[in-house]
Amino acid sequence: MRRREPEESSLMLVVSADVLRRQLAAIFKSWGMSDEHVETTVTVMVETDLTGIDSHGVGMIPGYQKKKEEGRINPRPNIRIEREKASVALIDADRGLGHPPSVMAMELAIAKAKKTGIGVVGVHNSNHFGAAGYYSQLAARNGVIGMAMTASSPIAVPTFGREPMFGTNPIAFAAPAARNKPFSLDMATTTVAFGKINIARRAKKPLPVGWALDKEGRPLTDSQVAFETRRQTPLGGTRELGSHKGYGLAMMVEILSSLLGGSYMGGYDLETGQRGKYINVGHFFLALDPAFFRGDLHAFTDDLDDLIDLLHATPPADPAQPVLVAGEPEHKSKLERAKHGIPMTPKLLEEVRAVAHGCGAEFLLGD
Amino acid sequence: MRRREPEESSLMLVVSADVLRRQLAAIFKSWGMSDEHVETTVTVMVETDLTGIDSHGVGMIPGYQKKKEEGRINPRPNIRIEREKASVALIDADRGLGHPPSVMAMELAIAKAKKTGIGVVGVHNSNHFGAAGYYSQLAARNGVIGMAMTASSPIAVPTFGREPMFGTNPIAFAAPAARNKPFSLDMATTTVAFGKINIARRAKKPLPVGWALDKEGRPLTDSQVAFETRRQTPLGGTRELGSHKGYGLAMMVEILSSLLGGSYMGGYDLETGQRGKYINVGHFFLALDPAFFRGDLHAFTDDLDDLIDLLHATPPADPAQPVLVAGEPEHKSKLERAKHGIPMTPKLLEEVRAVAHGCGAEFLLGD
Repeated sequence: MRRREPEESSLMLVVSADVLRRQLAAIFKSWGMSDEHVETTVTVMVETDLTGIDSHGVGMIPGYQKKKEEGRINPRPNIRIEREKASVALIDADRGLGHPPSVMAMELAIAKAKKTGIGVVGVHNSNHFGAAGYYSQLAARNGVIGMAMTASSPIAVPTFGREPMFGTNPIAFAAPAARNKPFSLDMATTTVAFGKINIARRAKKPLPVGWALDKEGRPLTDSQVAFETRRQTPLGGTRELGSHKGYGLAMMVEILSSLLGGSYMGGYDLETGQRGKYINVGHFFLALDPAFFRGDLHAFTDDLDDLIDLLHATPPADPAQPVLVAGEPEHKSKLERAKHGIPMTPKLLEEVRAVAHGCGAEFLLGD
Repeated sequence: MRRREPEESSLMLVVSADVLRRQLAAIFKSWGMSDEHVETTVTVMVETDLTGIDSHGVGMIPGYQKKKEEGRINPRPNIRIEREKASVALIDADRGLGHPPSVMAMELAIAKAKKTGIGVVGVHNSNHFGAAGYYSQLAARNGVIGMAMTASSPIAVPTFGREPMFGTNPIAFAAPAARNKPFSLDMATTTVAFGKINIARRAKKPLPVGWALDKEGRPLTDSQVAFETRRQTPLGGTRELGSHKGYGLAMMVEILSSLLGGSYMGGYDLETGQRGKYINVGHFFLALDPAFFRGDLHAFTDDLDDLIDLLHATPPADPAQPVLVAGEPEHKSKLERAKHGIPMTPKLLEEVRAVAHGCGAEFLLGD
């Protein structure tokens, strides 16, 4: 355990990936999860922390523990393929945590893509699956194009509305290159992640117009109120800057993640129209084999490398900030954190301690 | 031919769908296009004008004529399936106009989806295909989910950059409902369509920050300069409001439309790195059968109808402007224009007259 001073917060503690892995495994084992599901879940979560997506790795543990205690996560799910054809499948996650059925679904989609050119696998009866980008990158690491989407609990207000109707509903897309790192996009369809509103609140800074709305659906710049009101804008931010497009993308993700597999819409029970019954999360996975379309994989990766090179060579507006390609900041974070460890706030560390204590697991992140 | 005064322009002329159809057919026949290709192209274009997407229907005719004269459009293409498996295919459009190979590609994807659950068809060696939403709606009309994408010539500047590197690279997605109209999203991955900058220019109004950039990559609000400089922002508009997401989506569309099928990147010759050689346009089509995933189509359309009903019932910020669902404005336009005709500016009418005159086709839109 080392200490360091990062930019955004006060004191941070730094944990090695290996210790974090053992801590998470101890907690999930105490839940009674199978060794195989523990292994998969911990791998996805620690990789997510290594790539710098702090909101979707160990930071989720207090939330997962709460859902587990409420009986909304089945620790011993019987994950099974419910329907299957050569290029498509539907998986029933049996109300377990989302990571194991999602790895299974993407691996199935990849195998189908390699055999038939395309694989699409839906998952229903699931829970939070972590960072969508993990799954699309799994495809790219296997030489195919990958997409992953999921529905989540309502926070995004439709254009012209004032109530949240969709989750952050992310779209992840990755494609394999050769000389360069894979292209890897992982984006919420809201303007910003909720965590950014929280950072502004802690710093007592106002929000830019276009991040959040008040209860009447008007732009809201008070970060403290925005944190409490929990009404985010779809990507675009305002009608003038195209928020109807972010709203449309959020609904596309909802259709593919929830409706295609028969999950309830994020946060809504479609039968009663009631909010807050977030009991059935759905995901969507797609893998596509460029080798089928191009004759061989190299023809595709050569072109993607050329395109990435063109983007790196394009003149920047500010010479100090070159043009980046999606996935590069995460790759940089991974190199750094694999070497120096994963930063955690003292508050998160205390929360993990409480979770471990509460479920009878050893606490391994102490001094 | 009737006259009317719409909101945005001065005098407008109104043409019936049937007369417009015959005018377009006369022009394409004079090119030597086959009857079948004329029929398909005219159907797509007139439907686009009926749904109010004025930028992508008859408004494209002067541009098509120019490309034809430059030898960049083959009027008698031998469109053929180059590779095929049960769920995937690649079509060579033989440098013809994009509409016929795109209808063929989406119809093939739909047939594959109905047989195997999913169909993905790429098109290369093509040209402009009109409005992406036509093809995704074709899928929804046939009871399956549809996606359509295309690359186009560079106008979008990557986040942190100052040169255009991607086209407006649209994403279209449609899903069938029963009680309601299909959900139908058709969005450029730029913040706004270029036409909106032109409208502001004509009205001598400044642009909002986030629509356009100057040659140094800084936000530009002068609509006259923006019209000349042709540098648009990706959806999000500014880094603060998430333009890196729009940039990522534009690159995703480029990968699926151009690189997957082996087309050059929009506006770039990847072999020489030169700009402006926009000689090979690619498209991407996907159809997905909800009936496979849900057991039958009604289970899916019932849920989508419920979701659309929830969105219609959600309280609006302004009681005078209810929350809309993507596709509704276009449906409304179609009902109105089928009854009252398609408005055309006198300038466009003159351009069509010049095109008809230039290629020896009868001019049918005169008084």
